[in-house]
Amino acid sequence: MQRYFVSEEKLVLDQVTIDNGDYHHIKNVMRMKTGDRVYVCMMNKKTYIAAITSFTDKEVILRIVEEVEDIVEMPVDITVAQGIIRREKTEEVIKRITELGATKYQPVIMERSIIKISEKENRRNERYQLIAKEASEQSHRTRITEINNCIRFDELLKLRVKYDLCLYAYEESGRKNCSTLKEEIKKFTGKSILVLVGPEGGISPKEVSLLEEHGFIAIGLGPRILRTETAPLYIMSAISYEIELGEKNEN
Amino acid sequence: MQRYFVSEEKLVLDQVTIDNGDYHHIKNVMRMKTGDRVYVCMMNKKTYIAAITSFTDKEVILRIVEEVEDIVEMPVDITVAQGIIRREKTEEVIKRITELGATKYQPVIMERSIIKISEKENRRNERYQLIAKEASEQSHRTRITEINNCIRFDELLKLRVKYDLCLYAYEESGRKNCSTLKEEIKKFTGKSILVLVGPEGGISPKEVSLLEEHGFIAIGLGPRILRTETAPLYIMSAISYEIELGEKNEN
Repeated sequence: MQRYFVSEEKLVLDQVTIDNGDYHHIKNVMRMKTGDRVYVCMMNKKTYIAAITSFTDKEVILRIVEEVEDIVEMPVDITVAQGIIRREKTEEVIKRITELGATKYQPVIMERSIIKISEKENRRNERYQLIAKEASEQSHRTRITEINNCIRFDELLKLRVKYDLCLYAYEESGRKNCSTLKEEIKKFTGKSILVLVGPEGGISPKEVSLLEEHGFIAIGLGPRILRTETAPLYIMSAISYEIELGEKNEN
Repeated sequence: MQRYFVSEEKLVLDQVTIDNGDYHHIKNVMRMKTGDRVYVCMMNKKTYIAAITSFTDKEVILRIVEEVEDIVEMPVDITVAQGIIRREKTEEVIKRITELGATKYQPVIMERSIIKISEKENRRNERYQLIAKEASEQSHRTRITEINNCIRFDELLKLRVKYDLCLYAYEESGRKNCSTLKEEIKKFTGKSILVLVGPEGGISPKEVSLLEEHGFIAIGLGPRILRTETAPLYIMSAISYEIELGEKNEN
């Protein structure tokens, strides 16, 4: 069954309206008829099965049939923050971490980012959001990974208070005898985690000091050097493995 | 320090010769001189620090200074087998799983592969091998992920006896109440694992029966549907997390 993401104001009592691209998709691509059913995912809220009751020129009208239990979302909110990297790499990261269940992607302007940010970059957000939407649909998620606008590094530091745990992936972790992702995830009991991954050039010593001062914890991701676009996939996969996979056919 | 992968016959007593592309790289790109040191990784064997003793027209001659302890390779050999997928996706998978420490990549001709294999495909192997070499260097590995030629599905089944454990990622795992990657990895005590991931269209019911008959174990990778090019990254990251990351600053 097809799934469509719908914003909250489109649901009135038990009636949902779908317009724009999804209207076109239902009517002309899928050629659905009155009575056909789809999944309707309210943005970051509940998911329903809904049946088509009618079509107008611009909208499909559906009626909610039943609520669906959400079993595909991670039980913990994970925000991947990353120093700004090239557009193609950003798109790749967004696609993969969406499949892997991330809640948010937060680009950060960092000292060693090769890409200098301009107003144009934030206009790309629309495209990034679309990639996240498609990846969410493809992986049968009931939420779409939120793509935030770029923020400055000092704004990132202030986010510390909004999360139960803030981590940063640190290449020199082996030398500095710091914690590992495993150690932090195993003892974690909260609801929200932010993990920062540096840009291609890594995190600068000055940024490391600031992160430490603000209560971000350095973690290692194993003995090999991971590219900046691979580290988020490692983190998301490992967290899913730790908290989502059962050990005795629970899954 | 730069690292170069060298085949075994290039090491005679304590002397190593480097030619072709790496010769050019040492001499003209890095502009190294006599006395400069590099890492020399013998293909899938030991790693040494070696010092340049002289240059000829076509070769650099080096002398081994000391052996280096290998701490970057996974303690378990992991082969990722995958139904044949499009070239760009294959390249992406090879790049990422090399960074993540895979030993081998084994493409398999499967029922639902969209791509039909031709002789040309195996000629791509040279290009794939180069991608693996570059990714190995970039992630500071001491081994290069081996890229095998495509094999038929019945040949894959025969590989069972060569591995301590053979798994396949199964989308319907939730419904069939089967094992999870976690369950299998936690109880694993052997040396080598093969994990099969289907092509875009998935693994056919007939293939599933054959896999089961031959002792391949179905595993789930969590509640979301992962693309065929994402599943290998999940598997490699999760295995690394389980067996490589320490919990009490061991790492």
